[in-house]
Amino acid sequence: MRIAVFQGPLESGDVAQNLERLEHAAAKAAAGGAGLLICPEMFLTGYAIGPQAVAALAEPVDGPAAARAAGIARAAGIALLYGYPERGEDGQVYNAALLLDRDGQRRANHRKTHLFGTLDRNAFAPGEGPPTVAELDGLKIGILICYDVEFPENVRLLALQGVELVAVPTANMAPFAFVCRSLVPARAYENHLFLAYANRCGHEGELEYLGQSCIVAPDGVDLARSGAGEELILADIDPARIEAVRPHNPYLLDRRPELYGGIATPGKPA
Amino acid sequence: MRIAVFQGPLESGDVAQNLERLEHAAAKAAAGGAGLLICPEMFLTGYAIGPQAVAALAEPVDGPAAARAAGIARAAGIALLYGYPERGEDGQVYNAALLLDRDGQRRANHRKTHLFGTLDRNAFAPGEGPPTVAELDGLKIGILICYDVEFPENVRLLALQGVELVAVPTANMAPFAFVCRSLVPARAYENHLFLAYANRCGHEGELEYLGQSCIVAPDGVDLARSGAGEELILADIDPARIEAVRPHNPYLLDRRPELYGGIATPGKPA
Repeated sequence: MRIAVFQGPLESGDVAQNLERLEHAAAKAAAGGAGLLICPEMFLTGYAIGPQAVAALAEPVDGPAAARAAGIARAAGIALLYGYPERGEDGQVYNAALLLDRDGQRRANHRKTHLFGTLDRNAFAPGEGPPTVAELDGLKIGILICYDVEFPENVRLLALQGVELVAVPTANMAPFAFVCRSLVPARAYENHLFLAYANRCGHEGELEYLGQSCIVAPDGVDLARSGAGEELILADIDPARIEAVRPHNPYLLDRRPELYGGIATPGKPA
Repeated sequence: MRIAVFQGPLESGDVAQNLERLEHAAAKAAAGGAGLLICPEMFLTGYAIGPQAVAALAEPVDGPAAARAAGIARAAGIALLYGYPERGEDGQVYNAALLLDRDGQRRANHRKTHLFGTLDRNAFAPGEGPPTVAELDGLKIGILICYDVEFPENVRLLALQGVELVAVPTANMAPFAFVCRSLVPARAYENHLFLAYANRCGHEGELEYLGQSCIVAPDGVDLARSGAGEELILADIDPARIEAVRPHNPYLLDRRPELYGGIATPGKPA
């Protein structure tokens, strides 16, 4: 499957305008042959817009913005993954990402489990579920959001379930360029999977988003990487490439889970 | 503490000559102000010398080569960490690394837990212990060998115990340059610790060792990095640098071990 990653600035607080961006990007990605378009974290509303604005714009997983996005998916004939503030059935607001297939049907909804600083904690409740996995045209896809992917545990859990592509809507800002440049390729390499990291660019308040969205192969090599500005990147996800690297370095088979009990032991570090 | 990493070719199968190399490197590192010298995996004997040669040269942790190394440590006034084939009290041979302090006293002995392909499996039994931790002049040091460090679980387990420096004797060969260049810095960054990766260079049989030994800071930045040839590199390990990066990205505090049960669940992946 060919996939596309949209990197762009967003209109903070203007859902209608961001849905228009989504429509344009979906058409362009579909024209490029992509079957899935991945957009940044909190794509519909902007991210650092303050907890009140986030709460006011939060919608249920099947709210009106999702219905509009489903229409975009159907019209362009492309699956979509994008970030948005979700109003849960429990009344709480989650930093979420919704996966719709090309028929506009919901395939998955991931709630960010690892919240980043006060920016997240003041606005969102943490997701509590297991890692989110979905299937799309036979491809097994795991979904994480931004800070989630920086924890090796999360990508490992997805790899252990046979995930072939980890899709990561993100909003990564200065000074964390190491994450875009080095940590994300390391996650792909150490788990032998494809990883698509869809970042924002431009400014939002005091934040400078880094761009550098990328699609990385299971051998850690960039298949596509953005610069600092608006861009749509594409790459082909061929599971045969996973099978080609595994025998040289069979990390998943050589793991020794019986020695890893400390990883899952509750409590804070020494 | 200033530390040194020795990268060099070795004399395959000639322990006496490799001990001479150790003596020279120890004197040079001590003259440069280092309190600890880290040498490659299987430093005393060479690595890809065949299971029979390995078994013939294997010595107990307190064997004659260790006694000679202890004398070198005392004479130069520097702690030493180096790889060697250990003949265990159970009669098995382990791919081990011995840490001696500047008085020649044994502080730790790590047995490689994650064996790499037939090269390791034909020659060694796997270590079964918990991650190896030692203290040296107030610095908390974790020890891993080569392939061990490629598993994020192992470095995480050390970080959770408060380790400040992970020292890794290695013998990493083509085509695995991604490990030297990207994976090792990622381990330092995602755990907020210093990491010293002491590799070989040159050839041994059909293997081409990559060099690229490095000492990486807790922010993922190289403090020192070798090229492809023989070299001694030095860097200062200042724990204050760990404290400086932690607040920006408190990975260890933001972990959610209650979600990580799958990491430690026995069984092979999907």
